[in-house]
Amino acid sequence: MPSAYSKSGVNLKLAHSVKSNLPALLRKASRPEVLGKIGAFGGLFRATFKGMKDPVLVSSMDGVGTKLRVAVEMGRHDTVGQDLINHCCNDIAVMGAEPLFFLDYIGTGKLEKPVFDGIVRGLAQACGEANVALVGGETAQMPGFYGPGDYDLVGTIVGVVDRKQILDGSRVRAGDVVIGLASTGLHTNGYSLARKVLFDQAKLKARSKVPELGRESVGNLLLKVHRNYTPFLKKLRSKKIEVHGVSHITGGGFEENVPRVLPRGVGIQIKRGSWKVPPIFQFIQKRGKISEAEMFRVFNMGIGMVLMVPRRSADRILKEAKKAKLGAFEIGRVVRGESKATLI
Amino acid sequence: MPSAYSKSGVNLKLAHSVKSNLPALLRKASRPEVLGKIGAFGGLFRATFKGMKDPVLVSSMDGVGTKLRVAVEMGRHDTVGQDLINHCCNDIAVMGAEPLFFLDYIGTGKLEKPVFDGIVRGLAQACGEANVALVGGETAQMPGFYGPGDYDLVGTIVGVVDRKQILDGSRVRAGDVVIGLASTGLHTNGYSLARKVLFDQAKLKARSKVPELGRESVGNLLLKVHRNYTPFLKKLRSKKIEVHGVSHITGGGFEENVPRVLPRGVGIQIKRGSWKVPPIFQFIQKRGKISEAEMFRVFNMGIGMVLMVPRRSADRILKEAKKAKLGAFEIGRVVRGESKATLI
Repeated sequence: MPSAYSKSGVNLKLAHSVKSNLPALLRKASRPEVLGKIGAFGGLFRATFKGMKDPVLVSSMDGVGTKLRVAVEMGRHDTVGQDLINHCCNDIAVMGAEPLFFLDYIGTGKLEKPVFDGIVRGLAQACGEANVALVGGETAQMPGFYGPGDYDLVGTIVGVVDRKQILDGSRVRAGDVVIGLASTGLHTNGYSLARKVLFDQAKLKARSKVPELGRESVGNLLLKVHRNYTPFLKKLRSKKIEVHGVSHITGGGFEENVPRVLPRGVGIQIKRGSWKVPPIFQFIQKRGKISEAEMFRVFNMGIGMVLMVPRRSADRILKEAKKAKLGAFEIGRVVRGESKATLI
Repeated sequence: MPSAYSKSGVNLKLAHSVKSNLPALLRKASRPEVLGKIGAFGGLFRATFKGMKDPVLVSSMDGVGTKLRVAVEMGRHDTVGQDLINHCCNDIAVMGAEPLFFLDYIGTGKLEKPVFDGIVRGLAQACGEANVALVGGETAQMPGFYGPGDYDLVGTIVGVVDRKQILDGSRVRAGDVVIGLASTGLHTNGYSLARKVLFDQAKLKARSKVPELGRESVGNLLLKVHRNYTPFLKKLRSKKIEVHGVSHITGGGFEENVPRVLPRGVGIQIKRGSWKVPPIFQFIQKRGKISEAEMFRVFNMGIGMVLMVPRRSADRILKEAKKAKLGAFEIGRVVRGESKATLI
């Protein structure tokens, strides 16, 4: 006989069976500092930061946004977890931090095991690649809060940086070169607008293919995994290539994200045409009849991370990027003036 | 003219204006270890844990669940943030940890400033009371994911404990006394079932009053803030009163939460009638025709935290609870046997 609780929409047994694969899935998402076991009330991580004089924890919390809806429409759930981990890693990497551990939250109406497994597989894969331990999580069954098949996916990353190494942009100065690192696609921003244009206005389906966009379906293009720039930034640090400021280009584009790391009295000028805006953005702009200004406010336009660096670092960074097979472009300059990003 | 993005349901300007009160609201939710400023990509917290030999970070992530729906129905949003902070503090306090910092996530269809302010006010108040710094947060506008007025509220807490002081229940042994600490109400579990019984079956409204439940409305009773037991546990530590294991009674009740901290070969017996089950639970049970077993599986039944302690600690703990005006009852014993909780 079904319990009263399951009739109210919450199935405790299902919650257990859904989690049965967790230990196997999480094996590669660990680190030696992790103590304790899965299922404890809290995740345990030893805070012995060898070689650091004044360790500072750097943390960030984020979600995947409406990119999740594309995953639901494609029935493909193993990429969004990677998006989340990589996005969070980037958010603390721009402050100079090394990521350590992560916790995730899945909110959903009705738990489905294949979906849950897919999400966790993605989380575990990206954790493994980024050397991040997945130390905790919560799966909430919230009947009536989410539409059928929908879920929200949220996570928190904690990393560490030695205080003197914190990158807060205060070293950015007029004359610095602005280097843009290529994104893989929309990353995790602008999906409400992209979906409106592509699916509502242009009447495409997630599985549609469009000549301008090449051989991949629109859905797969939209699901391209958010790039994790942490290994590249770490490489620059290990080679002692000086970087003055780094900005993660997320919601709000250059306009909102670059000023977050600019000191008073300097802004940046971004030069149009200094990189090729990828076809997916051009297609959305054309089909949605969206102004260039708005495109740059909503989307990353092909640049997922921006580095403000002294002239002498610029060429070395471009060379390292080439070695790492990462697109990198000199896209502008730091100039005296208001603390904002301007397209020129 | 409205932008294409705002027509797709995401309003960047609103996001800014909604956050305009943040600095004022967060003033009391800080600690001296916090560096940096609001609006940075990551929250910064100095990890110098003086006096600790082997500091271990303890973290937990959780949501408020469908208690949020009651807040929406009551139009009262300043309690759910307190629920979240207190719940998270408890989850790491049971492992012996002191809470340090917190990050929050609000997912919503359309941002509304009074709602956002209410939520953050609750978060800040509970942070202030618990000496927790709110170092980061994310507010996601996800049109189409949440019903009108609905939102999800999720948070992550990070705390610290010296490795030798970690409470993992391994010290629990047969013969220990089980002490239950009073909850304030449902805390944050069982709301899907409670709402179904009270609002769907018994046809009550959130503002209804019921003689059996006293003078407060059903909605206000359901919104009672999740109690934070951390100060009490800290007090016991400071008085060197030995505690072998602690369990936070959340989703799954005694049955699921107590075994999380029991070593192999011991279980607990909970004695019916050793405390008074509060009227709200009795009312839900009667109106919903729910079995006692299921009530104990879904709800905390008046006990929000369970302590397994040596006999010599029991009376001292009851005395400390009395001083702290916290209900505390000897509710059972640790016995040899399967690692489970049994009602006797």
